[in-house]
Amino acid sequence: MTEFIPPGTRYIDLPSPFPMKRGGTLAGARIAYETWGTPNAARDNAILILTGLSPDAHAAMHDANPAPGWWEAMLGPGKPIDTTRWHVICVNSLGSCKGSTGPAAIDPNTGTSYKLAFPELSIEDIADAAAHVVRALGFERLACVIGNSMGGMTALAFLARHPGVARSHINISGAAHALPFSIAIRSLQREAIRLDPKWNEGNYDEANYPESGMRMARKLGVITYRSALEWDGRFGRVRLESDRRDDEDPFGLEFEVESYLEGHARRFVRNFDPNCYLYLSRSMDWFDLGESCGGTADQGLAKLRVEKALAIGVHTDILFPLQQQQQIADGLRAGGVDATFLPLESPQGHDAFLVDIGRFGPAVGDFLKSL
Amino acid sequence: MTEFIPPGTRYIDLPSPFPMKRGGTLAGARIAYETWGTPNAARDNAILILTGLSPDAHAAMHDANPAPGWWEAMLGPGKPIDTTRWHVICVNSLGSCKGSTGPAAIDPNTGTSYKLAFPELSIEDIADAAAHVVRALGFERLACVIGNSMGGMTALAFLARHPGVARSHINISGAAHALPFSIAIRSLQREAIRLDPKWNEGNYDEANYPESGMRMARKLGVITYRSALEWDGRFGRVRLESDRRDDEDPFGLEFEVESYLEGHARRFVRNFDPNCYLYLSRSMDWFDLGESCGGTADQGLAKLRVEKALAIGVHTDILFPLQQQQQIADGLRAGGVDATFLPLESPQGHDAFLVDIGRFGPAVGDFLKSL
Repeated sequence: MTEFIPPGTRYIDLPSPFPMKRGGTLAGARIAYETWGTPNAARDNAILILTGLSPDAHAAMHDANPAPGWWEAMLGPGKPIDTTRWHVICVNSLGSCKGSTGPAAIDPNTGTSYKLAFPELSIEDIADAAAHVVRALGFERLACVIGNSMGGMTALAFLARHPGVARSHINISGAAHALPFSIAIRSLQREAIRLDPKWNEGNYDEANYPESGMRMARKLGVITYRSALEWDGRFGRVRLESDRRDDEDPFGLEFEVESYLEGHARRFVRNFDPNCYLYLSRSMDWFDLGESCGGTADQGLAKLRVEKALAIGVHTDILFPLQQQQQIADGLRAGGVDATFLPLESPQGHDAFLVDIGRFGPAVGDFLKSL
Repeated sequence: MTEFIPPGTRYIDLPSPFPMKRGGTLAGARIAYETWGTPNAARDNAILILTGLSPDAHAAMHDANPAPGWWEAMLGPGKPIDTTRWHVICVNSLGSCKGSTGPAAIDPNTGTSYKLAFPELSIEDIADAAAHVVRALGFERLACVIGNSMGGMTALAFLARHPGVARSHINISGAAHALPFSIAIRSLQREAIRLDPKWNEGNYDEANYPESGMRMARKLGVITYRSALEWDGRFGRVRLESDRRDDEDPFGLEFEVESYLEGHARRFVRNFDPNCYLYLSRSMDWFDLGESCGGTADQGLAKLRVEKALAIGVHTDILFPLQQQQQIADGLRAGGVDATFLPLESPQGHDAFLVDIGRFGPAVGDFLKSL
């Protein structure tokens, strides 16, 4: 699975055994991470970025890997997350396949990959692993924890389970718990993978890989990551040129939007491990910040202690809808946090934070400048 | 396939050969229909109902079939579509499997079912077949054509291709053409069916039926037929009772919303023919009223001639979004029609017209009373 890992990735070993919230432990687990910028003398300029389901730790280029990262426009010298001021750490989530230990990794106890023997993964485990990385890198305190999408859930779990570690927080298109529409979408994505005979209860290999299931799952993902509004303008009812169509297939690709989904799916399927996808996807459905205090998500939010917070969302997001970022800001404020809710008019839906840097850049940059 | 057809269904033979818009003809084809109420002496009290993708012609109970229909609360004596005043005809769409000729029917030329040898089906063909039924039943003129969802597309095609037949029109959660988000959803539903090895290029039988693909397609359908808002209140994060869960399956059903989708899918899969589903689904993607005049959908709408029209939609509909019903009303009005746009606050999404009779009933009833 080394093909999944960007060059220049570094690693931090987790304590062994590493206890998992829902039971079981990991032996010899590690977390992949990358950094940008330099720690200052007081070591109080560190920012942690927690990612969505699929990204690796390569958020932006650096000397060891000059390839553009998934948040290249947001992160670097003079950019909204300005690496001339901040020392930025991005971790690949526990349970992923981009360098961190997950279902695709080798279990040292058996010498073979975990597959479905990997213990049940929760958002809280991802948060605990990230907190260990922060401490292992020698930071007592972070200037900010930034979480996008699933990472927004991870960030809230981080704040709840590691109080005092972060001074501030930016939650981007995140949520304090999963809502039933999002659960339904993710459940269907997992079903698509599991229905592929090649998934084989998790026992696939490169030669027998559940490509159809992963393609379906990814297409459904992309549909929910973007927005109908964006697509109306971008694709409309434009047909594919005839040389890009298979006239022998009566139900083949015909519209540009179908080709767009197909392209996204093809780029993804062999670059992400299906079992890791299942585990990470399920962890989002399970997440409910209310569990952190035995109450509701609102109560969980009101117990979080940071000095300042920003919750950003977009009105076209159907997967982590805007009211969930409103809930985060309101809940933090109810607990005494100086929290701001910032709804943005991006047409790009859930993924807007990746592409609409024109709106998200100033929002993130202004918040960080104010620290 | 007789198990698909409600008892008491009647039939009208289509002209043979029946020409299809995109090429080819049907021999010996027929349309299933049901009626309620009685034609008046002037024969000017007939209403035609055109359905969504999956319903049969059994919109409501009648003497020959006392089982409740799919629009039972809307249609009957004293109900919004009052059968003491109106003579109501509901047809099963051409291409469906509920009595009308479609890919599951026997091709008289071969003696075997059409399957993928059925000619390409368009919304316009469905409209033409319905228009033939109206004429064959002895009606020169309809008081109103009512179309829901896909039937809203069919109704617009009906008005364009059979001018003068309808005096008025109610378009419910319909559209003058498909938008890319809806195309993407339907394309993925078709892909789910086609990826099921049991689909077998359309050559399945009862023993080898693409149940998994149909289940996926239906679940994705239900997700887009309802709304996130409704589900927040209806399901929240409620878990299934442990006796309804399969503890052996690490990715099995866990949340009520997953069980709801599973139940919907199970009731559907063996009651609808997969090839018919593929044909009807694709016909919606192809539909563009603009083709009727070689221009845009707006231009197509402006050429339609009815005295009065009502376009109803709901703000939580993600499949046929509200702006599409606004477009219908605006387009008709631009052509001189007395057209009203009525947005409703139903939380139930696209399917609201089936369940939110409290809002849709008065809207439909008041319009019909005004005729």
